[in-house]
Amino acid sequence: MYFPSWLSQLYRGLSRPIRRTTQPIWGSLYRSLLQSSQRRIPEFSSFVVRTNTCGELRSSHLGQEVTLCGWIQYRRQNTFLVLRDFDGLVQVIIPQDEKMPTGEIEIKVKTAELLNACKKLPFEIKNFVKKTEALRLQYRYLDLRSFQMQYNLRLRSQMVMKMREYLCNLHGFVDIETPTLFKRTPGGAKEFLVPSREPGKFYSLPQSPQQFKQLLMVGGLDRYFQVARCYRDEGSRPDRQPEFTQIDIEMSFVDQTGIQSLIEGLLQYSWPNDKDPVVVPFPTMTFAEVLATYGTDKPDTRFGMKIIDISDVFRNTEIGFLQDALSKPHGTVKAICIPEGAKYLKRKDIESIRNFAADHFNQCSLLGKLRLECADLLETRGVVLRDPTLFSFLWVVDFPLFLPKEENPRELESAHHPFTAPHPSDIHLLYTEPKKARSQHYDLVLNGNEIGGGSIRIHNAELQRYILATLLKEDVKMLSHLLQALDYGAPPHGGIALGLDRLICLVTGSPSIRDVIAFPKSFRGHDLMSNTPDSVPPEELKPYHIRVSKPTDSKAERAH
Amino acid sequence: MYFPSWLSQLYRGLSRPIRRTTQPIWGSLYRSLLQSSQRRIPEFSSFVVRTNTCGELRSSHLGQEVTLCGWIQYRRQNTFLVLRDFDGLVQVIIPQDEKMPTGEIEIKVKTAELLNACKKLPFEIKNFVKKTEALRLQYRYLDLRSFQMQYNLRLRSQMVMKMREYLCNLHGFVDIETPTLFKRTPGGAKEFLVPSREPGKFYSLPQSPQQFKQLLMVGGLDRYFQVARCYRDEGSRPDRQPEFTQIDIEMSFVDQTGIQSLIEGLLQYSWPNDKDPVVVPFPTMTFAEVLATYGTDKPDTRFGMKIIDISDVFRNTEIGFLQDALSKPHGTVKAICIPEGAKYLKRKDIESIRNFAADHFNQCSLLGKLRLECADLLETRGVVLRDPTLFSFLWVVDFPLFLPKEENPRELESAHHPFTAPHPSDIHLLYTEPKKARSQHYDLVLNGNEIGGGSIRIHNAELQRYILATLLKEDVKMLSHLLQALDYGAPPHGGIALGLDRLICLVTGSPSIRDVIAFPKSFRGHDLMSNTPDSVPPEELKPYHIRVSKPTDSKAERAH
Repeated sequence: MYFPSWLSQLYRGLSRPIRRTTQPIWGSLYRSLLQSSQRRIPEFSSFVVRTNTCGELRSSHLGQEVTLCGWIQYRRQNTFLVLRDFDGLVQVIIPQDEKMPTGEIEIKVKTAELLNACKKLPFEIKNFVKKTEALRLQYRYLDLRSFQMQYNLRLRSQMVMKMREYLCNLHGFVDIETPTLFKRTPGGAKEFLVPSREPGKFYSLPQSPQQFKQLLMVGGLDRYFQVARCYRDEGSRPDRQPEFTQIDIEMSFVDQTGIQSLIEGLLQYSWPNDKDPVVVPFPTMTFAEVLATYGTDKPDTRFGMKIIDISDVFRNTEIGFLQDALSKPHGTVKAICIPEGAKYLKRKDIESIRNFAADHFNQCSLLGKLRLECADLLETRGVVLRDPTLFSFLWVVDFPLFLPKEENPRELESAHHPFTAPHPSDIHLLYTEPKKARSQHYDLVLNGNEIGGGSIRIHNAELQRYILATLLKEDVKMLSHLLQALDYGAPPHGGIALGLDRLICLVTGSPSIRDVIAFPKSFRGHDLMSNTPDSVPPEELKPYHIRVSKPTDSKAERAH
Repeated sequence: MYFPSWLSQLYRGLSRPIRRTTQPIWGSLYRSLLQSSQRRIPEFSSFVVRTNTCGELRSSHLGQEVTLCGWIQYRRQNTFLVLRDFDGLVQVIIPQDEKMPTGEIEIKVKTAELLNACKKLPFEIKNFVKKTEALRLQYRYLDLRSFQMQYNLRLRSQMVMKMREYLCNLHGFVDIETPTLFKRTPGGAKEFLVPSREPGKFYSLPQSPQQFKQLLMVGGLDRYFQVARCYRDEGSRPDRQPEFTQIDIEMSFVDQTGIQSLIEGLLQYSWPNDKDPVVVPFPTMTFAEVLATYGTDKPDTRFGMKIIDISDVFRNTEIGFLQDALSKPHGTVKAICIPEGAKYLKRKDIESIRNFAADHFNQCSLLGKLRLECADLLETRGVVLRDPTLFSFLWVVDFPLFLPKEENPRELESAHHPFTAPHPSDIHLLYTEPKKARSQHYDLVLNGNEIGGGSIRIHNAELQRYILATLLKEDVKMLSHLLQALDYGAPPHGGIALGLDRLICLVTGSPSIRDVIAFPKSFRGHDLMSNTPDSVPPEELKPYHIRVSKPTDSKAERAH
């Protein structure tokens, strides 16, 4: 048997496990994700030449002949090497004499086949090797070999599979694919365009299957879900992706509590076994309550430090700036109590809090931000406030139905989207004080992140028309198909969408959603591996009747 | 209790099943798809106000109080009505006196709530009501209420779910989402473009995740699958869709027989219970064999009527045109034997066969087409040749690796795609007679339709470079990331993609793939419900640096 000078080449060998010197590092971690019986389900060695994965072998395999396939992780002379696959590592002995190291098992080579060679890698596939994110994205196919990416993508796949079992097999939901080549929505300024072969006509890549899921309810499908690809062109926003995935759900004849129970059951059922189980039901707070208590509509409820109104304490104060504040209409004095703050926070911490407050003065979200700032400070002093193994869910309900338009505060825009049903107690307000009407929208918050949102929808065509045309002053023509559908016996219905990328990011404790997506774009929307987006020769633009317009050609070029 | 003049309004009632007059028409058909135990799994009434679906009720429910939600299918005066949901129909009695009709059960109304009104429908939701397809597509949300669309979409969802269980839970495949905003592929003339915010730079919507699945194998993911949305801009081709779905699979360390066993197991496992089970293994024929035997590479093997070479019989013939044919190089005389043709076919049938042959003269696929033409004729005479309940699978293997280019027959193009590995016995031919090299491509054919195709891929960077640059004369720069990836220890790998829309179309016996897609486009790529694609105001094109170019504006306008 001849062994050339391998570095990290591919390798296949028919061989015999003998004692092994080292524990399989990866295998033991995967064990929590996968089952560990002798005959495993799932079966990872069906349909291929290997008999076992590298990480699977145990002392119970002693004496068996096995065939393994993998990459060479490490090699010492021509005497032994460590073979790696997705499942773990195993030590392989190339017989010289009958040397027998300590440890559980290792593989004694009988025959070996070199399957491919490998150039010197730009970085090693080891956990402790630090690489820049740009390098990781450029060589994404190598970064995917890392333990963390394998773990993240496999956990994502398994968690989505459990969600499907829960929805499809246990609760009769129908998995329905909806089009991504659709019509732009009114005001859909963040939608990618796709030119068609008809001059001047475009498809649009929708931000969500919202219209389709409602139409499916009108179509009597009763319970719909989809792991839906969605698109949003937000230019350069950190930790956003131009395409992303949501668990998209809609049900007929349901109310808010029905959707909430469904989602609680869904997360409980699909939660990874290696994490603490999800406790249901999740607590619920109104939008008004979370704002008052946490200064944000997506509070991190893993820790206290709530905002407390202490106006009454200072009602008769002689301190000038507090008197000032309380004398104004709706003037209040509020406080956050930092537990053992005096013990942990230093003078310069207090100074930095004061500066932070000054920087964010007059922003209504100031106290919410200050609460997180104080938490950051306490944690740098060694206090564990936000336990990374803790998952704290919260429903936020009773959002306002409308907000004043940013450009023109005397006009209204939907706080979420124009199909959201008003709160049953507030329907009369639509005709008198629409600004005060609450909606049947609900958000799901996890550890300070919004991971889902949904609503009971309007199923009455007249009400939908009134809100679109009279209150929002939208062009109803673009939605005539939806309004018409509501006219033909639309059932009461509602739904929700969970942001899958964000959810998996939180579950795996990843620093960025890019770590739970196989081939993510950079924050500027580029694929660094393939150089995407790319230029297109003019003749390929012709069938789509478009031309590139560079009004300031030279400038645009320089901007690169 | 007051009942207004309902037509087909939404309805919710708390009521008591008593005897029923009629069998639930839909329910009994769904029964084969769904389980029928008393406490059903899946549970269709979780999280909502109803206690049961309309189609679920049986005599075992007699005396129970139930809450139902549905649409009014039929109403007679204010005495009884038929309530419909996705699961079936049930008769509801509005108590006038204690009238008791015959039959199994019916519902005696206690309370009723009118949930929505309904305008007069453009067509009735009944099986026997014939509608044009344009009308069905325009009111798709109403067409979805039909038994057939409900059956098709629910069967599709269940079959895909079984496939996922097989791949994910039984065989350790990882469900990985790959980007749809990608780089155009060399010669990818059928790819939709998506303008980016960088002047002159475009994303492309890929025709398949081919590059990504191979990169995932380089990344050590070992077993990948995805129910992948794919895009192809073919303009107006009948029974094609601009977006479609494939079951996309890739494995490392696998050979052709491994992929074949995997797919046979997959189809057997996911096949609907109400059809005859799938028998495995599927027969295999080479490309050369199917062409000789059936005159096509996707033969309908539900019936015989094979092509037979009878040249030897006529070697010494004196019939002029046969002598002529046999005297030419590679000249042959071939025949199809039509069983009992003399009994069934009339003189004008023979005449139409002769005309068909004349019309298709000199097309090498003539005999294949003639075979189907004869089958059509026999079936119009009442012979059942192609049993609609029979599913006849066939693997076709050993395709040529290259074909002469249509534009320039002295140059080569890939018969399938440039990543297909050559047949192991034919590698030497790549350097001598590449036209003769066979590939490791395989097609799966069902009842005369190609429902899948795949190959073992090239995992050697040098060989891939040689084929791309030297044989195919492609610009390798656009694929540099893939070639580089092969250089870093790519494992041997292969895969397959099944066309899901076509497969479900055949399984459900639907006339068109539009019948197994919730919201399909018309054959011109239009969504008739929402009027898609649509024009876009110029200010929304600006951020993408494109302009509509209508060189012959007036003409283009008139073409509408």
